[in-house]
Amino acid sequence: MARIVQKFGGTSVGDLDRIRNVAQRVKAEVDAGNEVAVVVSAMSGTTNQLVEWARDIGPLHDAREYDTIVATGEQVTVGLLAIALQNSGIDARSWLGWQVPFKTDSTHSSARIEEIQAEEIAKRLSNGQVAVVAGFQGVSDEGRITTLGRGGSDTSAVALAAALNADRCDIYTDVDGVYTTDPRIMPKARKLDQITFEEMLEMASAGAKVLQTRSVAMGMRHNVKIQVRSSFNDEPGTMVVDEDNQMEQQKISGIAYSADEARITIVGLQDKPGVAAGIFKALADAHVNIDMIVQSGSASHDTTDITFSVSASDAQKANAVIEGLKSDLPYEHIVSDTNIAKISIIGTAMRTQAGIANMMFSSLSDKGVNLQVISTSEIKISVLIDSAYTELAVRTLHDAFELHLA
Amino acid sequence: MARIVQKFGGTSVGDLDRIRNVAQRVKAEVDAGNEVAVVVSAMSGTTNQLVEWARDIGPLHDAREYDTIVATGEQVTVGLLAIALQNSGIDARSWLGWQVPFKTDSTHSSARIEEIQAEEIAKRLSNGQVAVVAGFQGVSDEGRITTLGRGGSDTSAVALAAALNADRCDIYTDVDGVYTTDPRIMPKARKLDQITFEEMLEMASAGAKVLQTRSVAMGMRHNVKIQVRSSFNDEPGTMVVDEDNQMEQQKISGIAYSADEARITIVGLQDKPGVAAGIFKALADAHVNIDMIVQSGSASHDTTDITFSVSASDAQKANAVIEGLKSDLPYEHIVSDTNIAKISIIGTAMRTQAGIANMMFSSLSDKGVNLQVISTSEIKISVLIDSAYTELAVRTLHDAFELHLA
Repeated sequence: MARIVQKFGGTSVGDLDRIRNVAQRVKAEVDAGNEVAVVVSAMSGTTNQLVEWARDIGPLHDAREYDTIVATGEQVTVGLLAIALQNSGIDARSWLGWQVPFKTDSTHSSARIEEIQAEEIAKRLSNGQVAVVAGFQGVSDEGRITTLGRGGSDTSAVALAAALNADRCDIYTDVDGVYTTDPRIMPKARKLDQITFEEMLEMASAGAKVLQTRSVAMGMRHNVKIQVRSSFNDEPGTMVVDEDNQMEQQKISGIAYSADEARITIVGLQDKPGVAAGIFKALADAHVNIDMIVQSGSASHDTTDITFSVSASDAQKANAVIEGLKSDLPYEHIVSDTNIAKISIIGTAMRTQAGIANMMFSSLSDKGVNLQVISTSEIKISVLIDSAYTELAVRTLHDAFELHLA
Repeated sequence: MARIVQKFGGTSVGDLDRIRNVAQRVKAEVDAGNEVAVVVSAMSGTTNQLVEWARDIGPLHDAREYDTIVATGEQVTVGLLAIALQNSGIDARSWLGWQVPFKTDSTHSSARIEEIQAEEIAKRLSNGQVAVVAGFQGVSDEGRITTLGRGGSDTSAVALAAALNADRCDIYTDVDGVYTTDPRIMPKARKLDQITFEEMLEMASAGAKVLQTRSVAMGMRHNVKIQVRSSFNDEPGTMVVDEDNQMEQQKISGIAYSADEARITIVGLQDKPGVAAGIFKALADAHVNIDMIVQSGSASHDTTDITFSVSASDAQKANAVIEGLKSDLPYEHIVSDTNIAKISIIGTAMRTQAGIANMMFSSLSDKGVNLQVISTSEIKISVLIDSAYTELAVRTLHDAFELHLA
């Protein structure tokens, strides 16, 4: 007997038939003798409609009211799933964020979970009742409904698993698990049986969309065993595990990519202290998220060039901010390119194995892929390239590192 | 300066434009220096969709989950209206049933309000903030969301007006006020400037749909001044007042009708004590609501006939219940007719003026309308007739009592 948290996203609960299907998956765990809490998102499409209304009603925006509106999506799903479970002979009840409660800070629309008071749910689980818990939502100290931001249901599930001391948190999704890379680009991509928290974190932040970064960080902090698996078949998925429990030790675990990057180079900046700080403070004030940064001094002049990457959707804003700085921080001109992709290879084995960066760079170079910017972390190497080469680069690296082999 | 509760139904908040229109009506009261709490229903159509989902997900039905699901309708509207008000420069915040709280009993889907803790709202009203309150919903002692049943938003508004000690409760609807009878049937129908609580109560229970019976009873009990008015124009509506404040004193105030009635006669019942009680207990146990009852003994036999009316939709169930009783309470046969209408005339003046019943019966008889069953209360006379004569009967009575004259 185990205590399990199951999480189903919007596609998995997209209509009444799918909700009944989810009820059957919950029932299977109950019938196997397990205690089950299930966290669900809004029916797919619902949240978009609610967000559209909240945006169209008027230009001024109150995030507290916005949260009140969009939180109804999950409220409908938990009620429907609880009824579907009862119809399958399972004792079940719904729990809204404020009923559990999921206590959060007051940063509406991107609130952080501060505490989950799960004692009552735990008691009922051990009495055989299934808890159907609304993901994505919580309640502030002021008693207002908060939401965790898009994808927050993964975080709700992992946090609940931590609070309930669950043996496992199963994240059901529309893919079979975590792949070595995107199977739509690389048909030879292989489903991983295991991945470490740190690798998963790097994969998520490097563009793999299978798990929310925040939920992985939450799982790592509280040591929650997470499984990513399909809601449409019974295959085992991918276990996200502690590095200590990792079985496989390949050179790298996966390749992530993000095709919507922009590269901006400020050419001919005066090379004096505080210049870089001034630029990045102005960008941060404008809420532009910077990813990679490279500064290249030039020996022959008193100037330097700074190159950084942002998401393509932020490129225009970033350019405007830098143009606004020109009087204070003189420079020659800006070069901006929005046809940029970021390719990342990820693996904890990098810590101990030499030659991985070299293998990455040389195999790409052999195919004529020019590396514009390189950045590395302990378990990740990322490069910016012309986005036209995205698929070629992913396939080349997948072959080079023999990721199709288990 | 006055403290006003405004209530807008589903049609009045049916889309974003109409919600903006409601915001303007609220703003008008604020600009006139009044304190305003506004109670809203779900956007029209929304509740039906939610009810359909909750019913279609499975045959077993948990009213607690049903309430959780349908309460989202009002939750969306309060958030949208609060944002619309802020966009009109009005300080406003939304209040859900559990946030106020509207404390109710645990009779889910038809809960009764036990207490409204409105101190915080009252404080904010006097600081100039508009309270946008979700109608129709409350919270039980167990912390579950409850709903008051269909039309419950009127009751929410009147109860809130009582708790806030409001000077007036304006119920905005898609008609201009309370009419002497249905203008679709009688073009000469006249809008009443005033009607007493008791008359309104009888009108509502006799089939007039303009105000929920429960909300009128609530208003009467707490002496809340209610105005029924149109959300689509600025005309004054109908004030529902105490009898002491009534200005007009006509023979009758209005004519109500209900075309969906059924008449059931049990012929040849043994005439002994307990027979009627046995029948009506069995019907009550089957949740069949009985309206009018007439028992007619026959002098020559030891048998009696009992005639009663139910809504047409309950006729089949009532027949089945009575057939099931035949072995215990022998009778000859049942006569059942579902083409029945109930016509009622209502007016407090009946208490003091003679000849009103006679005028009703004779004017209908002059037009060849046969009266099948008659029942009277202190301020109402109802008759059952063949439903084919409904419109004729309403028009005949409207003319006979000269209701077109103010």
